[in-house]
Amino acid sequence: MTESIPLASPLGPGREFDRIRAIAARLGDVAPTLGDDCALVTPTGETLVLSTDMVIEGTHFRPGWLSWEEIGWRAAMAALSDLAAAGARCVGLLAAVSSPHDAPEDQLVGLMGGVGDAVRHAGGTVLGGDLTASPSWIVSITVIGMAIRPMTRRGLRPGDGIWVTGTVGGARAALAAWTAGRDPAPAARLAFARPEARIAAGQWLAAHGAVAMMDVSDGLGGDVPHLAAASGLAVDVNLEQVPVHPAVPAEAPGVDEHPAVFAAQGGEDYEVLVGLPPEFTEPDAAPFQLACGLPLTRIGTARAGAGVRFRLDGQPVPIRGFDHFR
Amino acid sequence: MTESIPLASPLGPGREFDRIRAIAARLGDVAPTLGDDCALVTPTGETLVLSTDMVIEGTHFRPGWLSWEEIGWRAAMAALSDLAAAGARCVGLLAAVSSPHDAPEDQLVGLMGGVGDAVRHAGGTVLGGDLTASPSWIVSITVIGMAIRPMTRRGLRPGDGIWVTGTVGGARAALAAWTAGRDPAPAARLAFARPEARIAAGQWLAAHGAVAMMDVSDGLGGDVPHLAAASGLAVDVNLEQVPVHPAVPAEAPGVDEHPAVFAAQGGEDYEVLVGLPPEFTEPDAAPFQLACGLPLTRIGTARAGAGVRFRLDGQPVPIRGFDHFR
Repeated sequence: MTESIPLASPLGPGREFDRIRAIAARLGDVAPTLGDDCALVTPTGETLVLSTDMVIEGTHFRPGWLSWEEIGWRAAMAALSDLAAAGARCVGLLAAVSSPHDAPEDQLVGLMGGVGDAVRHAGGTVLGGDLTASPSWIVSITVIGMAIRPMTRRGLRPGDGIWVTGTVGGARAALAAWTAGRDPAPAARLAFARPEARIAAGQWLAAHGAVAMMDVSDGLGGDVPHLAAASGLAVDVNLEQVPVHPAVPAEAPGVDEHPAVFAAQGGEDYEVLVGLPPEFTEPDAAPFQLACGLPLTRIGTARAGAGVRFRLDGQPVPIRGFDHFR
Repeated sequence: MTESIPLASPLGPGREFDRIRAIAARLGDVAPTLGDDCALVTPTGETLVLSTDMVIEGTHFRPGWLSWEEIGWRAAMAALSDLAAAGARCVGLLAAVSSPHDAPEDQLVGLMGGVGDAVRHAGGTVLGGDLTASPSWIVSITVIGMAIRPMTRRGLRPGDGIWVTGTVGGARAALAAWTAGRDPAPAARLAFARPEARIAAGQWLAAHGAVAMMDVSDGLGGDVPHLAAASGLAVDVNLEQVPVHPAVPAEAPGVDEHPAVFAAQGGEDYEVLVGLPPEFTEPDAAPFQLACGLPLTRIGTARAGAGVRFRLDGQPVPIRGFDHFR
């Protein structure tokens, strides 16, 4: 259990505080303590889990594609996804936001509204933040969670199954449409604009024998190699088993890729990639699906060695990940 | 006591991970767990204190004025200063850093080295971070502390003394020289480039009866009004009692300001502004000075009412604060 101590001092004068007041009015009880310099949390017993993520206009999003609420939601969910992968419940987040000097106030309030909606959806509150100004938008989110059994990327053993929650490739399908100058299909747009950090799924998996977990932010092509490297093992992935988002088949031919390859090379799905022991089999995924409302699909197997082999119908296929520095 | 669980998984492939490896090599044991998605901390008993701060090239710093180590040090100390004002000890920080695509790798490693030096100086470690790319440098720091008696801005009562640690105006003296095209005096440059979050001082004050605390980041002109407003009181400040940094008298005449006015209108000093009960008097400041190696100076008094009166030799003087949105 966590007790968050209400601070909520009366705010002093100045434009920065006017902006905090406008944000507090939009957020209501999901941000009970804005305005103080520090957030106070009293944890008892569990392990504290912390992670930080920064998204930048131009690099990670373009305002024209999304509403300000959606930009805030995505930024928060991208960070909250790291809590999901740690098997943690969500305590809350701190949001540092920089906006252009000439940005209308409703954009900042909308963005923070989306941040607040996301953290409420994840079961937490906005614990604090920082506001500043810059030529383009920057949103830096630090999430705080608590875990009974905190999970990391490490812990795979040879023979463990590699599984993934939900479906992948939906966000890339939306990006493919936008970059081709088309409006994405509604399901693709939703996958990109309103991802959901798999907080409940991560806790279920941690409680049911998961040995290693991480979230899929850089695509299976980027993240399966990280999962394998963290445990010093190899992983074989069967691409025909990858759970492909329903919006992918319409977009994959446009870039001349098999739908499973398209999906595995997509980023920002925010599903959980998890190693489970060999004795965890398909029938064991049914209670997960009931509890979490999501598929849980085995896509591969860990073995001694190094590197990741992606195969489609038995043939090796090179799969790239998503790298912001590329 | 806090136990930080070592994660430090072997890192996977990719340029982002190459950069994390270079940073880990520079930071050594002050960042034992880089590379995982979440930091894990196990607190026992005390209250967790969290704060976040973002600094942006152009808005908050210019690379030409400072070394990359100094830029990282300042960014970290600005955030750590909020822990000092909460009376907290430092557990650690998370650093999200965005750098230009063409920035040499040693700039990022230097900046993170300065972040690491600062958090080591404050008694904590680098718990995690995020790396991305953008046209200009962005450093977003989230600090985590623990407090036995967490302090906020609230709690002043009429008659309480308003005190400040150290001296103020030094950072502004450096800025005044730079903006006039001159090199700052060494003491002014040091005040700007290497501020020290008053972690030990904050803990001492919290343990010795402080009723309200905040750090002086926007200058006395900006922050005393916030301290007063948080408790719904007025504050009278006697400017001739303000502890002026030794570099101020040389710079104040250049902008035609009395040194105390110049100092009170300077920002980014990162001293602690504290309300202490009336029975705390000058002799009580001597043990503080011995314990913390800093002066502790009474500059004013809280009273019923609203607003802040700054007086110099009995005459009212308008004092501005520093506002990034101005």
